[in-house]
Amino acid sequence: MTVAERSALSPSQAREFFREGQVLPTAGISAGYAQANLMIVPRDLAFDVLLFAQRNPKSCPVLGVLEAGEVSSELLAGGDIRTDVPKYVVYENGVKVAELTDLTEYWRDDLVTFIIGCSFTFESALMDNGISVAHIDQGVNVPMYKTTTRSSTAGAISGPMVVSMRPIPASQVADAVRITSRYPAVHGAPVHIGNPEELGITDLSKPDFGDAVKIPEGSIPVFWACGVTPQAAVMESKPSLAIGHAPGHMLITDIKDAQYQVP
Amino acid sequence: MTVAERSALSPSQAREFFREGQVLPTAGISAGYAQANLMIVPRDLAFDVLLFAQRNPKSCPVLGVLEAGEVSSELLAGGDIRTDVPKYVVYENGVKVAELTDLTEYWRDDLVTFIIGCSFTFESALMDNGISVAHIDQGVNVPMYKTTTRSSTAGAISGPMVVSMRPIPASQVADAVRITSRYPAVHGAPVHIGNPEELGITDLSKPDFGDAVKIPEGSIPVFWACGVTPQAAVMESKPSLAIGHAPGHMLITDIKDAQYQVP
Repeated sequence: MTVAERSALSPSQAREFFREGQVLPTAGISAGYAQANLMIVPRDLAFDVLLFAQRNPKSCPVLGVLEAGEVSSELLAGGDIRTDVPKYVVYENGVKVAELTDLTEYWRDDLVTFIIGCSFTFESALMDNGISVAHIDQGVNVPMYKTTTRSSTAGAISGPMVVSMRPIPASQVADAVRITSRYPAVHGAPVHIGNPEELGITDLSKPDFGDAVKIPEGSIPVFWACGVTPQAAVMESKPSLAIGHAPGHMLITDIKDAQYQVP
Repeated sequence: MTVAERSALSPSQAREFFREGQVLPTAGISAGYAQANLMIVPRDLAFDVLLFAQRNPKSCPVLGVLEAGEVSSELLAGGDIRTDVPKYVVYENGVKVAELTDLTEYWRDDLVTFIIGCSFTFESALMDNGISVAHIDQGVNVPMYKTTTRSSTAGAISGPMVVSMRPIPASQVADAVRITSRYPAVHGAPVHIGNPEELGITDLSKPDFGDAVKIPEGSIPVFWACGVTPQAAVMESKPSLAIGHAPGHMLITDIKDAQYQVP
């Protein structure tokens, strides 16, 4: 499939493509539609996860929740959350036990699914407004860093705030703030601008997740709360079972990016 | 205590005043600080309540949650949620069983407290911007109506959307939208403007809660999602125990109204 063909897939076509077992990172698929992070936990941990999201809305913006045992919703009309994401990661007691393309064998009727906003949406908005995104230009994954700032704890769930970094030309930093603040459902405005040491980041060239990017002369490192934060925190609590998506292999939703813009 | 003295109380002074057993509606107390609705339920219903809030953010904006057994938080520093609200209403199996000024005898370690935004905050903003608020001018409680629109269901919790109504001069309706949309934490923008029949409201002079207001010539009825919505829905689910505040007798928080303004 060509890049143009992937971009033109409808969300339901893309989900069907993955349901049939195809495995691809989802960047560039179904252009204009929101992609989302996945976090699936047993019902007995669901209140703590939702409360963690309520207390950490920038890192954990909830787009939708499938109640215990539900496998579809209007975010993925006609779809099935157990098969429609290209790749899943299964954790037992906080340890990764499987990567797979179909969750059916792990599914239980007490599993609750959280669908969490992803920064792909605001990256499109940045580019549409003439702000280039370094990791896209450089053809790599966005660099992500564990910080020394803790997320707000909720019940059993606690962990470090994880941030993504995009270098932005100094003359465009204010515009990047303005543009991303209009997308609170997908991490919103930056949490930090220009002083990595204060977040406990000593070397930008060594991200904890993703890839390093070259920082263009005159650009400032700008940090956004990252969707890896809830996954990292849930893992720290070592639940009996938790399931996420594999990095970069997101759920394609039926919601247009533009619908998440405010005001 | 004079009106000016009530207005000048700090939030902690106001909470102490109520802790000592005073009973007063809270309108006008601790000017500039956010007042909040209360909803206390057993832990086994807490996920459904929080999910209801996530799915109905306009009627149920969560400002904070006290986890099971907690009685204080940074929203009421040094305070105690069991004593610091002027009047509570206790429901068992959906039926009101008590109104009281101290919850101690009903308190259990599995109770979770939801602190929910209240429109007092945006009413101050409307008046600061030159838009008069009819029920305040007329010295009555805001009129509230059950609508035929259903809230989004979450688990066991389901009910009608309840709205409050403020008549706004036609030339100021757009301003009222703009101003209140900047306060998403306290119900935000209106849900409906100008056609009560469509909400199933046949007679504006007969509100389901609160008081009727005279609608000035040339004013349009504007409807906001109302904090009574979650209480009404939780009651419909007939939980073994649920506790709210008495209408108009709110929790005074330490958070300034201005902090809830975006962007």
